[in-house]
Amino acid sequence: MSQAVVHAKTVYLAGQVADDTSADVAGQTRQVLAKIDRLLVTCGSHISNILSATVYLSDIGTISAMNAEWDAWIAPDNKPARATVEAQLAAPEYRVEIVVIAALD
Amino acid sequence: MSQAVVHAKTVYLAGQVADDTSADVAGQTRQVLAKIDRLLVTCGSHISNILSATVYLSDIGTISAMNAEWDAWIAPDNKPARATVEAQLAAPEYRVEIVVIAALD
Amino acid sequence: MSQAVVHAKTVYLAGQVADDTSADVAGQTRQVLAKIDRLLVTCGSHISNILSATVYLSDIGTISAMNAEWDAWIAPDNKPARATVEAQLAAPEYRVEIVVIAALD
Repeated sequence: MSQAVVHAKTVYLAGQVADDTSADVAGQTRQVLAKIDRLLVTCGSHISNILSATVYLSDIGTISAMNAEWDAWIAPDNKPARATVEAQLAAPEYRVEIVVIAALD
Repeated sequence: MSQAVVHAKTVYLAGQVADDTSADVAGQTRQVLAKIDRLLVTCGSHISNILSATVYLSDIGTISAMNAEWDAWIAPDNKPARATVEAQLAAPEYRVEIVVIAALD
Repeated sequence: MSQAVVHAKTVYLAGQVADDTSADVAGQTRQVLAKIDRLLVTCGSHISNILSATVYLSDIGTISAMNAEWDAWIAPDNKPARATVEAQLAAPEYRVEIVVIAALD
């Protein structure tokens, strides 16, 4: 699969997970957000252009820890429409996966 | 996060949940659909313009109760592409969360 | 609900599940992919135009079996952005459901 696909001035990213899965949910969230940041820049977009985000947590009880990282990362005046649900992910060591649709600059 | 984001004549809504979580899944679904209705109108769209919907139920066994509310609400000639799956939501009292993408009028 | 909705040169498909639910996850995946193929052609699109895919598996342990079918089906040079998570589906006999957004030709 591709990590990013562009169509009609819209960027679709694959679900992003952490590379270092020894990290806790906060650390994995930071890694995931950094990957999203890089992918969007590569496509000519930017985190301030995120339209929607779907956050999957392997344990919904970690939502506050994920939110703290999210809030530190997202520009206050450019917040995407988000949904957060619990789901088991491709491997048990993944604690968070985030899917993003963004506008192309 | 934002409740609604617009790009390229498309509206992305955040996952909507009920405000009165003492309601059962039918009551929560009605609240959620009413919120979606209001958000879409605020954006200049309309429920008849919904393109896709993702319905998350905390108990997939409640799909019939949710469907009854959905069917009463959606215009028969303007039905969105929908997926419905079970997922635990941000708080255990939430029984349904709905994410919508809609066309802008 | 509709099986396919088109807006702004983008096709939104409903979540597709197998008709013959006696099949295992590989067989159900093949059925689902064939349905997606047909729906996209009906809309004037094509599997090589898929932008994003969300794969729900009732047992994430079957991801390798699903991936084998997926990889045999997707054109190597036109891979969508994909996310795969575990979720219980509308009926317990469904093992896989796939949601697709595609570009219109």
